[in-house]
Amino acid sequence: VRLTQLEVHAALPPMTVTIDAAATAAKFREEIRAELATLSQPLTLVGILTAERGPSATYAKYAQKASEEVGVRFFLRHANRLEAEAAIREYNADAAVHGLMVYYPVFGTERDSYLRDTVDPAKDIEGLHSYWARSLYENRRYLDAGRAKKAILPCTPLAILKLIEAAGVFAPKGRPLEGRTVCVFNRSEVVGRPLASMLAHDGARVYSFDIDGPQLYTPSDRPDGVHKVSETSVDRARALSQADIIVTGVPSPNFELIRAAEIREGSVCINVSTYRNFDPDIEGKAAAFAPRVGPMTVTMAIRNALRLYQNGRS
Amino acid sequence: VRLTQLEVHAALPPMTVTIDAAATAAKFREEIRAELATLSQPLTLVGILTAERGPSATYAKYAQKASEEVGVRFFLRHANRLEAEAAIREYNADAAVHGLMVYYPVFGTERDSYLRDTVDPAKDIEGLHSYWARSLYENRRYLDAGRAKKAILPCTPLAILKLIEAAGVFAPKGRPLEGRTVCVFNRSEVVGRPLASMLAHDGARVYSFDIDGPQLYTPSDRPDGVHKVSETSVDRARALSQADIIVTGVPSPNFELIRAAEIREGSVCINVSTYRNFDPDIEGKAAAFAPRVGPMTVTMAIRNALRLYQNGRS
Repeated sequence: VRLTQLEVHAALPPMTVTIDAAATAAKFREEIRAELATLSQPLTLVGILTAERGPSATYAKYAQKASEEVGVRFFLRHANRLEAEAAIREYNADAAVHGLMVYYPVFGTERDSYLRDTVDPAKDIEGLHSYWARSLYENRRYLDAGRAKKAILPCTPLAILKLIEAAGVFAPKGRPLEGRTVCVFNRSEVVGRPLASMLAHDGARVYSFDIDGPQLYTPSDRPDGVHKVSETSVDRARALSQADIIVTGVPSPNFELIRAAEIREGSVCINVSTYRNFDPDIEGKAAAFAPRVGPMTVTMAIRNALRLYQNGRS
Repeated sequence: VRLTQLEVHAALPPMTVTIDAAATAAKFREEIRAELATLSQPLTLVGILTAERGPSATYAKYAQKASEEVGVRFFLRHANRLEAEAAIREYNADAAVHGLMVYYPVFGTERDSYLRDTVDPAKDIEGLHSYWARSLYENRRYLDAGRAKKAILPCTPLAILKLIEAAGVFAPKGRPLEGRTVCVFNRSEVVGRPLASMLAHDGARVYSFDIDGPQLYTPSDRPDGVHKVSETSVDRARALSQADIIVTGVPSPNFELIRAAEIREGSVCINVSTYRNFDPDIEGKAAAFAPRVGPMTVTMAIRNALRLYQNGRS
């Protein structure tokens, strides 16, 4: 008996493709390196680090490595948390510095919002300033009528969107996530809320879960319109059973892991948290799984730096 | 034996004066009413309320009453939390509305910061926009070189400062709190941090306590300079033993109440939290005690409304 390729495939247990954030990031960095080579000067970025160790320090080192790999000059400034604001102002005013990253948490309180808004939006390569948040929530994708200058998107949600694209679920035309349903667990101001907004502006219906209850982001009827947001009574089980894409950013070891039994066959799963939010048993049922996003985040920040530089020159 | 008045006073147990926020507020409202009467039109304020009951609803009712008492038109807009942002934008754009109050918490998360920054600073009678926070932290007290337009201060810290003034501890000339030491328990972005900054700009040395450790605000040597802030290892006992003024805004029933044994004789104590943060035994040892601030907060917001109106016309 000879089986066709399709039959072989059907006879095998289903495969979950691993979406490798580092490999995806490397591809983006190739493009970035090529674009950077066309500039008249190298870009210079500064990272401001207030933690001596832990995830921020690791992330800062990674940012330095990734920057240097594409030919971006990167300077890591160590400061204590009370010096961070003055350091930001110093680099805001320094024409030789093209972009700034601040490794959060600095205070770990609401005060970090104040700090994020201290960064000059034109140097905010992480896209965290409320200026950029407003552009995003209002679906203003360009800064100019001529649509030459693209608005900056927050780097973690952008990284997640690029990993979803890498999973091959984008529609070839129209809004890339038209007709898709997404579940996002996390509605923080830096990850989950901007992500839900981006996904809905790209056509998806998004269930957004957080401790203060689920919300539903519904795409606009007009391709360039602003989504609607409403409170919803959907529960996790029902939302997951509808989801083509599941994104989790729950920073807790106590989150009830998402199990294979809860998800649709062939869904795309993205784990953003440094904690594992998915049960290993999703492997085999999900079409694709990204166990982490980190390396893509830094790369999207560097891509934003390039955008901001080009916006300033065009 | 006839005692002089001073000897009578010394022979009696020490008295703690109660600073009555409602009575102090009533005096300010008289001034405000007189100033409002000189305007060519009545002021119109809008409050945006997303809670059906609880402290925000009570506060909203109080704001309405206090406004109407001084001849300000007050409209209370009920909205659900997801409608709050659109409501703010609506009134930002409405020239017939002179000022806006939003009753927080709306989301109770970092998202409330985003909402606070959605209010037009020129209508932000609570003084919570980061535009006003920046003016405060940088000690810019006027908007114009001619010093005709005063910057707006956040209404709760301003209310506290006015109660401290009512306790009679302001110096008659120079910086009003020159040489004083203050302890502030709370370093939130809406109360404790701006308060510490205001006090230090008024000449005080301020110990600021919060869950992430104590900080010391040191006034500038120049009367119009910006304070310094540093981490400190001072503990509660030592800070309290030095404090001329103690302000508590700890929103918890688990805070270890401040007792008479911890404070200096003759200190001024202000309880901002809706929880009682002082042990009743401070009565008799403190020179003055304000058990609550609330009524003054609303009155300071109305005063800010008047300022903003005058700034727009001058």
